[in-house]
Amino acid sequence: MIDPHMDTVTILGLFAGALTTLSFAPQAIKAWRSRSTADLSFAMLLLLLAGVLLWFVYGVARGDLAIIVANGATAVLVAFTLALKAQNG
Amino acid sequence: MIDPHMDTVTILGLFAGALTTLSFAPQAIKAWRSRSTADLSFAMLLLLLAGVLLWFVYGVARGDLAIIVANGATAVLVAFTLALKAQNG
Repeated sequence: MIDPHMDTVTILGLFAGALTTLSFAPQAIKAWRSRSTADLSFAMLLLLLAGVLLWFVYGVARGDLAIIVANGATAVLVAFTLALKAQNG
Repeated sequence: MIDPHMDTVTILGLFAGALTTLSFAPQAIKAWRSRSTADLSFAMLLLLLAGVLLWFVYGVARGDLAIIVANGATAVLVAFTLALKAQNG
């Protein structure tokens, strides 16, 4: 799957991105399963969504694959969790 | 505060980093004030801490100020929230 010519630092960045993106999976799944999002901070989710979208733009401006992939994927997960929070309070 | 010679893209990155780092402030404050962290996913916090620490290493490898500052600061906030979660369950 990983392009053998990709430099080690990019692979490090892709791995870091996988962790930070995946780190949202348990929270999104927990919010989806339990429908209990009372302890989740709406402000946090909103700020985070804005932040990862800006990081995405930063990645594009720098042509940095790891930043583009990680923040694009995280934005999808955060938006999903935000929708659940909006729905369930 | 911002170095006038800093290029626009770096400033964009610092701003994105401020958002994603600040996005953890409400969650850390909420966890600190309410001591109620039941809905917070321990797995998420652990994965996120590992991820932002790796991003920090990535930033150093790339010499990318925005990534270094954002992920260093986020690591501190996430570690604090993780400690509260460990303490309060």
